[in-house]
Amino acid sequence: MATKNKQVLLANRPQGWVQESDFQLVETDVAALRDGEVLVKNLYLSLDPYMRGRMNEGKSYAASSKLQEVMVGGTVGVIVESKNPNFQVDEHVLGYFGWQEYGISDGKGLQKVSVSQQLPASAYLGVLGMPGLTAWVGLMSIGQPKAGETVVVSAASGAVGSVVGQLAKAHGCHVVGIAGGKAKCDYVVNELGFDACVDYKAGKLVEDLAAATPDGIDVYFENVGGEILEAVLDRLNAHARIPLCGFVSQYNETTPHAVRNFGALLINRVKLQGFIVGEHAELFPQAIKELSELVASGKIKYRETVAEGIESSPKAFIGMLKGENFGKQLVKLA
Amino acid sequence: MATKNKQVLLANRPQGWVQESDFQLVETDVAALRDGEVLVKNLYLSLDPYMRGRMNEGKSYAASSKLQEVMVGGTVGVIVESKNPNFQVDEHVLGYFGWQEYGISDGKGLQKVSVSQQLPASAYLGVLGMPGLTAWVGLMSIGQPKAGETVVVSAASGAVGSVVGQLAKAHGCHVVGIAGGKAKCDYVVNELGFDACVDYKAGKLVEDLAAATPDGIDVYFENVGGEILEAVLDRLNAHARIPLCGFVSQYNETTPHAVRNFGALLINRVKLQGFIVGEHAELFPQAIKELSELVASGKIKYRETVAEGIESSPKAFIGMLKGENFGKQLVKLA
Repeated sequence: MATKNKQVLLANRPQGWVQESDFQLVETDVAALRDGEVLVKNLYLSLDPYMRGRMNEGKSYAASSKLQEVMVGGTVGVIVESKNPNFQVDEHVLGYFGWQEYGISDGKGLQKVSVSQQLPASAYLGVLGMPGLTAWVGLMSIGQPKAGETVVVSAASGAVGSVVGQLAKAHGCHVVGIAGGKAKCDYVVNELGFDACVDYKAGKLVEDLAAATPDGIDVYFENVGGEILEAVLDRLNAHARIPLCGFVSQYNETTPHAVRNFGALLINRVKLQGFIVGEHAELFPQAIKELSELVASGKIKYRETVAEGIESSPKAFIGMLKGENFGKQLVKLA
Repeated sequence: MATKNKQVLLANRPQGWVQESDFQLVETDVAALRDGEVLVKNLYLSLDPYMRGRMNEGKSYAASSKLQEVMVGGTVGVIVESKNPNFQVDEHVLGYFGWQEYGISDGKGLQKVSVSQQLPASAYLGVLGMPGLTAWVGLMSIGQPKAGETVVVSAASGAVGSVVGQLAKAHGCHVVGIAGGKAKCDYVVNELGFDACVDYKAGKLVEDLAAATPDGIDVYFENVGGEILEAVLDRLNAHARIPLCGFVSQYNETTPHAVRNFGALLINRVKLQGFIVGEHAELFPQAIKELSELVASGKIKYRETVAEGIESSPKAFIGMLKGENFGKQLVKLA
């Protein structure tokens, strides 16, 4: 009897906020392996804001997903059958199989990872995976923080932001997070060791940001856009740097927030650079080396929100876009 | 009898558009020279958009001018009296004496220039002066244009924009200007050799820009901001670069134009950098060498609009902010 594979397809292109009805759960039979192929049982699926862009038809930095195809996404799994001499059953691999329980690959694009108690499989989707690399590349290569400077990061308790802030602390900076809600802000300060955290939901964003950044802002790692971006622009120091990583507050808006103080970039001679991590692979070895050391020594901590089962993916994804997750959002598939 | 010196002072801080009544013309006696000083008779005063920022009280990239003080500005003049052994009568010097007919200096900050028929005194305030250096630094150091790429520059017939476009042509780019009115656009294409020019006053900015940039935009040299910036952001290619030099369309607005498509900077992984030329003095020798060669060989042409007499400065300045000048705006003082 064939193995059953549950998959989540893109059913509709959302207008504005994503709905669960924009996805469709289907069950298919896993095909028989051909020579050279492996069958991977996915253990965890990574949910990330960039996926919202793939649901649109319009131009973004990657081709949009097709209707009735499996939603894209990074996965970590275990080989359960192999007709490829380079992969053995029970080995763990990072892949990009998307929102489904099983994946078949000829081995290209699969990356073996070493799973241990200190570095569980899920870490390879977070602090040592794409989000961790994104944090490192944006902060170190574009932000170039110097000891004593003030670094601000939005979505500070998230998979990217939490690493940005801890990295900046490790480099001697004054680090201020921006996050939604007291629980996240407490976590950012008390557990992750940021110097301060501004709760943007508390209703005094401009005042609270000013209080937390008495010497202005030298590096702003941008994950959210909108009103938070505007508040930060008004506090930039001369020669500030802005790694532009994401705009999650805007992805579900049909009318994007217009930025009224663009001129701050001129007045302060700011360097701003949009980036996606996949275009900076030459930096990965250095990034992984530094991140691994900081995780192993406990200087970088991380937290995960784990939804259970492939069926929960749409709801968990929508929750993540609304900021309901705490740390890296995963779906446990097996 | 003492020499009389006419000066233009800042009388009021303008709210919104500058008025002639924001300035005051006064006449003072030139002081007697002390040892080490020189008296310079200014021949030309440079009028530039950045001066509008100095009239405000708020933070900009330089301290604001004080009320009842002489307006700042670059000047080129001739030594008429010297008690400094390093300067002889009849030598020409570049200075920063501001809106007045005479200036006294101890020699610091004065730069001797060699005036000839090919390189008249006024050129040192334009193509070989601050505007030319601004064009070179922004385009070559930040824009980094490659042959075959599309370079767009706003305020294309102006002192900075005209040099940007001709430099980009000299480096093998497809060059598109944006300017106000048919006369300026004709000049940009027919005399300066741009490949195309979009007349933003013609009412079809978005369509005309699309037609002139069939392969998208790789470098945008920004002088104006506002709606033109938005139109350009929608046509950026991946990895585009934006030297952010000026925002002249916004300087007199009490409510700045909000930019609705900031997200284009993320989607296209754009590098944007605000700059002021004075912070890049290490590049000046290379810039002046290249600019001088291109001017001497006729590959860089320039045009000047010259107002007559210090009394005409306020009116000429306001006209320049409205785009009424054609090429570099000067005031002939003597």
